[in-house]
Amino acid sequence: MGEALLSSMLTEILIPICAVVGIVYALIQWFVVSRVKVVPGYSNGSNNGTNSKNGFTEYLIEEEDGGNDHSVVTKCADIQNAISEGATSFLFTEYQYMGVFMVGFAVIIFLFLGSVEKFSLKDQPCTYNKELMCKPALANAAFSTVAFVLGSLTSVLSGYLGMKIATYANARTTLEARKGVGKAFITAFRSGAVMGFLLSANGLLVLYISINLFKLYYGDDWEGLFEAITGYGLGGSSMALFGRVGGGIYTKAADVGADLVGKVERNIPEDDPRNPAVIADNVGDNVGDIAGMGSDLFGSYAESSCAALVVASISSFGTSHDFTAMCFPLLISSMGIIVCLITTSFATDIFEIKAVKEIEPALKKQLIISTVLMTVGIAVVSFVALPSSFTIFNFGEQKVVKNWHLFFCVAVGLWAGLVIGFVTEYYTSNAYSPVQDVADSCRTGAATNVIFGLALGYKSVIIPIFAIAISIFVSFSLAAMYGIAVAALGMLSTMATGLAIDAYGPISDNAGGIAEMAGMSHRIRERTDALDAAGNTTAAIGKGFAIGSAALVSLALFGAFVSRAAIATVDVLTPKVFIGLIVGAMLPYWFSAMTMKSVGSAALKMVEEVRRQFNTIPGLMEGTAKPDYATCVKISTDASLREMIPPGCLVMLTPLIVGTFFGVETLSGVLAGALVSGVQVAISASNTGGAWDNAKKYIEAGASEHARTLGPKGSDCHKAAVIGDTIGDPLKDTSGPSLNILIKLMAVESLVFAPFFATHGGLLFKL
Amino acid sequence: MGEALLSSMLTEILIPICAVVGIVYALIQWFVVSRVKVVPGYSNGSNNGTNSKNGFTEYLIEEEDGGNDHSVVTKCADIQNAISEGATSFLFTEYQYMGVFMVGFAVIIFLFLGSVEKFSLKDQPCTYNKELMCKPALANAAFSTVAFVLGSLTSVLSGYLGMKIATYANARTTLEARKGVGKAFITAFRSGAVMGFLLSANGLLVLYISINLFKLYYGDDWEGLFEAITGYGLGGSSMALFGRVGGGIYTKAADVGADLVGKVERNIPEDDPRNPAVIADNVGDNVGDIAGMGSDLFGSYAESSCAALVVASISSFGTSHDFTAMCFPLLISSMGIIVCLITTSFATDIFEIKAVKEIEPALKKQLIISTVLMTVGIAVVSFVALPSSFTIFNFGEQKVVKNWHLFFCVAVGLWAGLVIGFVTEYYTSNAYSPVQDVADSCRTGAATNVIFGLALGYKSVIIPIFAIAISIFVSFSLAAMYGIAVAALGMLSTMATGLAIDAYGPISDNAGGIAEMAGMSHRIRERTDALDAAGNTTAAIGKGFAIGSAALVSLALFGAFVSRAAIATVDVLTPKVFIGLIVGAMLPYWFSAMTMKSVGSAALKMVEEVRRQFNTIPGLMEGTAKPDYATCVKISTDASLREMIPPGCLVMLTPLIVGTFFGVETLSGVLAGALVSGVQVAISASNTGGAWDNAKKYIEAGASEHARTLGPKGSDCHKAAVIGDTIGDPLKDTSGPSLNILIKLMAVESLVFAPFFATHGGLLFKL
Repeated sequence: MGEALLSSMLTEILIPICAVVGIVYALIQWFVVSRVKVVPGYSNGSNNGTNSKNGFTEYLIEEEDGGNDHSVVTKCADIQNAISEGATSFLFTEYQYMGVFMVGFAVIIFLFLGSVEKFSLKDQPCTYNKELMCKPALANAAFSTVAFVLGSLTSVLSGYLGMKIATYANARTTLEARKGVGKAFITAFRSGAVMGFLLSANGLLVLYISINLFKLYYGDDWEGLFEAITGYGLGGSSMALFGRVGGGIYTKAADVGADLVGKVERNIPEDDPRNPAVIADNVGDNVGDIAGMGSDLFGSYAESSCAALVVASISSFGTSHDFTAMCFPLLISSMGIIVCLITTSFATDIFEIKAVKEIEPALKKQLIISTVLMTVGIAVVSFVALPSSFTIFNFGEQKVVKNWHLFFCVAVGLWAGLVIGFVTEYYTSNAYSPVQDVADSCRTGAATNVIFGLALGYKSVIIPIFAIAISIFVSFSLAAMYGIAVAALGMLSTMATGLAIDAYGPISDNAGGIAEMAGMSHRIRERTDALDAAGNTTAAIGKGFAIGSAALVSLALFGAFVSRAAIATVDVLTPKVFIGLIVGAMLPYWFSAMTMKSVGSAALKMVEEVRRQFNTIPGLMEGTAKPDYATCVKISTDASLREMIPPGCLVMLTPLIVGTFFGVETLSGVLAGALVSGVQVAISASNTGGAWDNAKKYIEAGASEHARTLGPKGSDCHKAAVIGDTIGDPLKDTSGPSLNILIKLMAVESLVFAPFFATHGGLLFKL
Repeated sequence: MGEALLSSMLTEILIPICAVVGIVYALIQWFVVSRVKVVPGYSNGSNNGTNSKNGFTEYLIEEEDGGNDHSVVTKCADIQNAISEGATSFLFTEYQYMGVFMVGFAVIIFLFLGSVEKFSLKDQPCTYNKELMCKPALANAAFSTVAFVLGSLTSVLSGYLGMKIATYANARTTLEARKGVGKAFITAFRSGAVMGFLLSANGLLVLYISINLFKLYYGDDWEGLFEAITGYGLGGSSMALFGRVGGGIYTKAADVGADLVGKVERNIPEDDPRNPAVIADNVGDNVGDIAGMGSDLFGSYAESSCAALVVASISSFGTSHDFTAMCFPLLISSMGIIVCLITTSFATDIFEIKAVKEIEPALKKQLIISTVLMTVGIAVVSFVALPSSFTIFNFGEQKVVKNWHLFFCVAVGLWAGLVIGFVTEYYTSNAYSPVQDVADSCRTGAATNVIFGLALGYKSVIIPIFAIAISIFVSFSLAAMYGIAVAALGMLSTMATGLAIDAYGPISDNAGGIAEMAGMSHRIRERTDALDAAGNTTAAIGKGFAIGSAALVSLALFGAFVSRAAIATVDVLTPKVFIGLIVGAMLPYWFSAMTMKSVGSAALKMVEEVRRQFNTIPGLMEGTAKPDYATCVKISTDASLREMIPPGCLVMLTPLIVGTFFGVETLSGVLAGALVSGVQVAISASNTGGAWDNAKKYIEAGASEHARTLGPKGSDCHKAAVIGDTIGDPLKDTSGPSLNILIKLMAVESLVFAPFFATHGGLLFKL
C-alpha cells in the first residue's frame, strides 16, 4: 500500500510536470522562431535588431537577386499583417457565434441532465458493482455544464493559438527561404511544433486540473466524476465542429473562387497579388487548416481521454480507487509529450535539411521515430502504472485483463495510425503510381481525371479500414471497450508530432503565397513550393490520422454510451436498431451535401466578386491598381458563418431528437451507422482531393520524363488537372475532415445525454 | 377443410394461369410491334408487304423530307443488324464465361452443402417447431445445385430475350418516328412491355414449376424445399452480376470513349456514323441497360420470392401445410402481372400521345396507375389467400399476425417504391430546380458542375433512405422478417410495368442513334431525342426502384440467413460483428473503385483506337470512308469480359471466405454493413450521373429562357456540362447499379451456404 501511495503521488506529479514541460518547450520554440537571426556567412554579419516594423526583425542578407532589399522585408511584413488581421477578425466574429451557441447549449445540458432524478443503473439490465449517480442530478448537471464550458474554451484557445503562431511564422519562413531550404524548413517546422505542443499539453493540463477540482466534490465517486467530465469532450468537439465546418467553408470558398477566375480565366499564377481573393485564400489556410484542424484533434484527444476514463471508472481499479491505474489514459498522453519532444529535437537539432528532396523523408522520419519511441514509452507506462492483473466490466460481464494486454491495445492503435498514415501517403503523394496514373488520365481530359480520382479515393479506403478493423478486434478482444478507448489514445499519443507536421503544411503554403505576393525571385518561390509539396503529402497523412483516430474514439464513446445508457445489446435484427443504422449511414451524405453545396455557393459569390473587380478596376491586370481584398475576405467570412449553421444543427440535433423520441436503441443504431459509413466517405473524400492536388503539382513540377510529357503549365493536361484540383478542394478540406467531427460529436453528445435518454427517451414508443 | 382444398386448388391453377397470360400478352405485343403497318393518311396507302430485307416490312410513307426513300429503310435495317449482331456476339461470348462460372460454382455449392451432415437447428439457440433438414445432405445439396442452375438459366434467358426484342424494336421505332412522336412512342413502349412481361412471367413460371417438382421429393417438408429453392435466387443474382458489371463496363467504355473523341475533340454530334465507336456505344445500351438490368430485376424478384418463401416455411401456415398461404408471395406476383397488363393497356390502347410534352407524364401515369391498382390487388390477395390470423416465428419468438397486417406490409413496400421513384425523378429530371441548379453551375466551369452534381447526389439519398427505413419499420413491426420480405415483393410487384418503362429508354436511345446514323432529317431526330429525354428520367426512376427493392430484398435475405444460421442476435457491440460491419461498409467502395477504374482504363483504350482511326483512315471525317466499327466492338467486349472478373470475385468470394474463416456473426456484420453503406453509394452515384446527363440535355435543348443563357451546344457552359455527363456515365450505369447486385448477391449466397457456415464456419476462431 505504501508503494501504491508512492506510485499514486508520482502520478499526481508526473502528469502536470509533463504538461508544463510541453508548454515550456512550445514557448521556447516560439522564442527561437521569433529570434531567428541572419546567419553569418549568408549575411553581411550585421543585424539591425529591433528597429523593426510590427515586431519584425529585419533580415538583411546578401543574395544575388535583391534579397537585401528593405522593401521586400516590409512587403512581407505587410502581407503577413493583412493575413493575420483577416484571420483574427474572422475568428473573433466566429467566436461570437460560438459563444452564443456555447451559452445556449450549456443551458440545454443543464436542463436536460438536471431533470434526471435518481437514475441508477442498478435498476437496469447492465450490472455494475456499485451505486451510480449517487449525487443529486442538479450537481451532476452543473458539473457537466462546467466541463462543457471548459472544453469549449480550451478548444477555442487551441485553435486561436495555432492560428497566431502560424500567421506569425509564415513571412518568417519566406524570408528564411532566401538563406536556403533548410532554414525555411526549420522555421516552418518549429512553428508547427509550437502548435503541436501547446495543444497537447494544454489539453492534458486543463483536463488534469478539472479532474482534481471535480474530485473535491465527487471524492471517490469516479463514475459520477467521469460522467461529468465527458462534458469536456463535448465542449471540445462542438467548438471543433464550427472550426472545421466554418473554417473549411471559408478556406475553400476563397480558394476555389480565386482559382476559377485567376488561374482558369485570367491565366495568372496562384497567389498572384493581382487576384482580389488572394488574401482571403491565405487567411483561409490559417482559419481552416490550422485553427480548424487544431480544434478537431484537440476534440479527438479530449474525447478519447474522457471515453477511456469513463470506461476505466467502472473497472476494478476504478472501484478500488487505484488512482495511478485510473490515470493510465492521462499517463499515456504525458509520455506522448516527452516522446514527441525527443522526436522533434531530431528534426530541429540533429538532422539538417540540405536539399529539397530531403524534406519529405525528414517529415516521415518524424512519424516513424515517434512511433518507435512511443512503443517503448507505452511499455514503460503499462508495466509501471497498471496492476499486473485487473478486472474490466464489459456490458454486465467481467473480463480479467493483464497489464501487457493493455500495452498491446495502446500499441496496436499507435501502429495502426502509422499504417493509415503511410497508406494515405501512398495514395496521395505523386512519388507513387496511383497519383501518377491520375495525372496520366488527364491526357484524355478532365472527365477521365475525375473518374480515376474518384476510383483512387474509393480504393484508398481498403487498407485503412482493415487497419481499423484489426485494431478494434485486437483491442476489444484483449480489454473490451476499455481496450478500444486506449487504442484510440495510442493513435493520438504522438499528436504533438502529428500536429507539428500538419501545421507545417499551411505555414509553408502561406510562405509561398507571401513570396509570390512580395514579388520575390523565382528561386525563393521554388524553395517554398518544395516545402509546400511536402506539406501537402503530410497534410494528407494528418487527415488519415485524424479520421482513423476519430473512428476509434467514436467507437469508444459509443461503447461508453451503451454502458451508460444501460443497453445490453445493440441487435441489428431489431427494427429500431436497423432503421437507426441505415439512417445513420445516410447522415454523412446529408452532411457532405450541405457542406459541399455551401462551398459551391460561396465560391460562386466569390467568383462574381473577383470577376467584377477585374472588370471594373482599371489597371488591376496590369498591376498598377490594387484590388479590394477586404470585400473578398468579407464574402468568405459571411458565407462561412451563415453556411455552418445548417450542418451544425444536423449534427447537434440528431442525437437529441433521436434519443428523445426514438430512444437509446435507435440512437445506438444511428451512431454505429454514421461511424461505419462516415469513415469511408471521409477517407475517400480526403484522399481523392489530395491525389488531385498532387497530380496537378506533379504536372506543374515536371520532375520526371513522364511528367514532362503531360505538362507544361497551361497545357490541356494541366487544365484538366486544375479542374480535378478544384473539385478536390471542398472534398479534402471541407466535407471530408468535417465528417470526423460528425461521427465523434454525435457519439460524445449521446454519452453526455445518456442518463436523460435512458430515463426520458423514446417518447414516440411510449405513446 | 373442403374450402381450404378448393382455395388450394384455385391457387394451384391461378399462379400458372397468370404466368401464361403474361407470356401470351408479351408475345402479342411482340407480334404487334413486328407487324406495324403504314397508317393510311400518312402513307401512300399501299404496303409492299413482305418483300423485305432481313424480315423488315418496308415503310413507305410520304413525308416532306425524303422519308419515302427505300435507301433510308435499308440503312436503318443495316444499322439495326449491326447492333443486333454486336450485342448477340457479345452476349454469347459472355455466356461462355458465365457457363464456366456456373458449372464451377454449382460444384462448389454441391460440395459445400453436401458436406453438412445431420445439421439440425434443434441443437441451436433458435427454436423452431419442427425437425429441420431431415433429408440427407447430399439430396439437399443436389436440389440446391439444380435450383441454382435453373435460376442461372432463367436469368440468362431473361437478359437475352430483352436484348433481342430491344434490338428488334429500335429501328422500327426510328421508322415510326417519321409518322409522328405518338407512333414512335407506342412502338418503343410496346417493346419494353414485351421484356417486362416475359421476365416477370417467366420468373414466376419457372419458380412455380420448380417448387412443384421439388415437392415430389420433399413432400410437406417446406423448410427443406425452400432451403433448396434459394439456389434459384443465387443463380439469378450471380448471372445478374456478370450482366450488370460486364454489361456496365461494356456500355460505358464505349460511350465515354465515343464522347471523349467524337464530341469533345472532333466536335461531331452524338451517334455520328463517322465515329468508329458508335456501333459499340449502341450495342452497349442493349447489353448493359437492357440485358444487365433485366437480369438484375429478375434476380431481385427471384431472391425476394425465395426469401419470403423461406421465412414463410417456418410460420404457422408453413408448418400446417396451408398451401395457399404458403404461396402468398407467388400470388402477389401473379396479381402483379394482371395489374400491369391492365396498366399497360392504358398506354397502348387508351391514351394516345399526340405531343412531345405528353411522353413523360404518360410514363409517370403508368407508375401511378399500376401502384393504385396493385394496392387493390394486394388487398384481394391478402384477404382471400391468407388465414385471418396466423403465427410467424421470428428468431425464436412467436408473433401473431393478422391478414390485414400483411396487406399493410406489401402496400408499404409498394408505395415506398413509388416515393423513391418520384424523389429520384425530382433530383434527375431537368424540369425541377436541382438539375437546373447543376446546369447553372456550369457557368463557372466543369469544377463547380462536378461539385454541385456530387452534392446533389448526396442530398438525393435522404428521402429514399427515410422511405426505406419507414417500410422496414412498419413491415417488421407488423410481421417481423416475413413482413420485410413481402414488402420487397410489394415493391417489385409492378415489375412488369417498371421494366417496360425502363427498357423503353435504351430502345429510344438506340432509335435516335439509328436516325442519326441513317442520316434522317432533323425532325425525326428531334422526335427520338424527346423520347430519349423522357427515357432518361424514367431510367433514373427505374434505378431508384431497383436499389430500393434491392435494399429490402437484402434485408429479407439477411433475416432468412440469420434464421437459418441459427444466430439469435447480431450485436454490434461484439467485436466480431463490428469489424464485419465496418469492413462490409467498405466493400461498396472497393467494388466501385474496381468498376470505375475498369471503365476508365477501357475508355482510354477506346479513345486511343478512335483517335487512331481518325488519324489514319483518310476521308473518315469527311464521311467518304467507313470507320472500322468491329475493332471498337472488340475492345469493349474484351475489356468488359476481362474487367468483370475481379469485382465478380470480390462479391462471390467475400461471403465464402468470411463465413468459412470468421463465422456467421462476422458475416452478419458484413452483410449489414454492405447493405447500409451500399444503398447510399448506389443512390447517390445513380442520381449524380442522371442529374449531369439531364443538365447537359437541359442546356442542349434550350427550352427555357434560363437554359438559353447557358447554351448553345458548344458553348463553354455546354462543354462543362459534357464533362459532368461523361463522369456520370460510369457512376450511373456501371458502379451505381452494380452495387444492387453486390448487396443482394452476398446476402443470398450467405443464405444458401448458411448450413455450411453454421456447422463448419469460423475456422479462425476454432484454432
